[in-house]
Amino acid sequence: MEMTVNLQDHSYPIQIKSGILKNCLKDLNPNRRYFVISDSGVPAKWQNMVMEQLENGTLFVFEQGEASKCFDQYQKIMEAMAASGMNRKDAVIAVGGGVAGDLAGFCAATYMRGIDFYNIPTTLLSQLDSSVGGKTAIDLGTLKNLVGAFWQPKAVWIDPQVLETLDPRQLKAGLAEALKMGLILDEELYREFLKEEPRLEWIIQRAVDLKRKVVEEDEKELGLRKILNFGHTIGHAIESSYEHHDYLHGECVAMGMLYFLKDPALKEQVINIVRKLGLPDVPCFDQDAVFEALVHDKKGSAKGIDAILVDRPGSFQIESLPLDTFQKLLKGNVYEEHIWQ
Amino acid sequence: MEMTVNLQDHSYPIQIKSGILKNCLKDLNPNRRYFVISDSGVPAKWQNMVMEQLENGTLFVFEQGEASKCFDQYQKIMEAMAASGMNRKDAVIAVGGGVAGDLAGFCAATYMRGIDFYNIPTTLLSQLDSSVGGKTAIDLGTLKNLVGAFWQPKAVWIDPQVLETLDPRQLKAGLAEALKMGLILDEELYREFLKEEPRLEWIIQRAVDLKRKVVEEDEKELGLRKILNFGHTIGHAIESSYEHHDYLHGECVAMGMLYFLKDPALKEQVINIVRKLGLPDVPCFDQDAVFEALVHDKKGSAKGIDAILVDRPGSFQIESLPLDTFQKLLKGNVYEEHIWQ
Repeated sequence: MEMTVNLQDHSYPIQIKSGILKNCLKDLNPNRRYFVISDSGVPAKWQNMVMEQLENGTLFVFEQGEASKCFDQYQKIMEAMAASGMNRKDAVIAVGGGVAGDLAGFCAATYMRGIDFYNIPTTLLSQLDSSVGGKTAIDLGTLKNLVGAFWQPKAVWIDPQVLETLDPRQLKAGLAEALKMGLILDEELYREFLKEEPRLEWIIQRAVDLKRKVVEEDEKELGLRKILNFGHTIGHAIESSYEHHDYLHGECVAMGMLYFLKDPALKEQVINIVRKLGLPDVPCFDQDAVFEALVHDKKGSAKGIDAILVDRPGSFQIESLPLDTFQKLLKGNVYEEHIWQ
Repeated sequence: MEMTVNLQDHSYPIQIKSGILKNCLKDLNPNRRYFVISDSGVPAKWQNMVMEQLENGTLFVFEQGEASKCFDQYQKIMEAMAASGMNRKDAVIAVGGGVAGDLAGFCAATYMRGIDFYNIPTTLLSQLDSSVGGKTAIDLGTLKNLVGAFWQPKAVWIDPQVLETLDPRQLKAGLAEALKMGLILDEELYREFLKEEPRLEWIIQRAVDLKRKVVEEDEKELGLRKILNFGHTIGHAIESSYEHHDYLHGECVAMGMLYFLKDPALKEQVINIVRKLGLPDVPCFDQDAVFEALVHDKKGSAKGIDAILVDRPGSFQIESLPLDTFQKLLKGNVYEEHIWQ
């Protein structure tokens, strides 16, 4: 399956196909240098499969994990790119999850004021979410994605086959993101999760296509694109307050969503899906620390914070809520029926 | 005088007027936060004049000099911006020379994936060159501007009155850049330098207008804009090889230009202008070090390097020259008539 993200002068194709990793790079210009950025969590067999297709490629592997999305790692990669002789006509290829895509994308966005970027996401979460849309970034201490750029890739290749080697916990975290997209935008995608055996490749295609449409309408996240933050406001805050160690991003998003399902019946159904997928329950977190992280999060403003609420699958409302409301929600038990009253 | 840089969805005004600094910010939205980035070389009276117009402003002063265009300073400023509570709707204002504009512009370009940027250049060089065109960057060791972004300002205010407090050496370096623009693009501007008393404000207006036209035609430096690198290839290399300490950028550009004036009569005339302005002669530099810096410079490629040549004022040619030619030029004495033979 191939689709095009239509963004005026920087449109690009996304190809989704099992086994595509083996030969997706064969049509790239062999006269350019390619700087491949991957992380230690990506099995060598996928990295090798990429490198074998490049005549003039350099592989850079950084340590797996959110902690690598930092200034130090960013500087190291830029230095390695310069040392390998990369110039303005060369290109960067990311091979890995969201961290690799964000970090490599930001390097591409800012090396010599921007060079071409290709993305090969190898986790489910990055395949159906972060690889599409051009958001690149690094963190500033505990402030996630504070430093970054909008930089669209030239192409994205999604190979569901690489998920064979993915940690099952990462797979579940990715499904949480697809569930989120179904809840806000697509009842059919949501209903897939009610089935005995949800179809993985179908879910990827459906979610990527939704993401594509949202990005086309709002490339720079000035409006509509914010809806994808459903579950993120509190989710990010929980993630930050645990210093990125204990929970995966998708796990936190799954937790964060629950707070904004006002309808008790829908919330119960989503809790059941989340538990069936094997995602963790919301822990007994430090309420003050999470609230503080939330206030400092970049979506904050002096007056209030926009929250995305879902009453029925496939539709949403945006409400600007005062900080008090978030504080109250965080103090409540999200598994109780009436946290909003 | 006001002009508009026309760049589709990110056009912006440039105002050039003596005394404008006193009230140029009075129409800015008072509900936004403004993070003012300036350097220790800017007299406090200009910084205060800016801050007095802002209800909600924070002043950040970094140490004057090219050495501040580094990762460390970049990170420090991003941290200070976060600490002051800046969000996506706030804006950065640069008050200073090219270093302040490049550094502050890159911070604005990458803070939360890009926030608004305003530029108040306070050196002649930045007024007539770097403040127009959206090139922002920091250095990577000796590699100038290796890390950066194209990020257009929302407005540029140029007040020739602030040049009163400028070091005369900086003033001369700025005039070298204007001379360069006259040589490649505008015979009338060039001829102004043959007069007894060239008119400073007229030169600024003329040079900014030329720069505006070039940027409008080639925002991302894919073609035409490269011509502004006249004098830069060797100039940058001399500058880098001296580790940014001994020479100003404009001084090096003035040196670099001489190598690419093939016509002996024109070269003699330009040497006279350069000396009359009080710009330094080309020193007895380390030829190998300068050649190495040139090869590593970002304009390099495996095959050759584009050089801009001027045979008569106001017109230019671009030639791709092999590295050998540059080596030969560097070994020669540029003040001799026949360095090209």
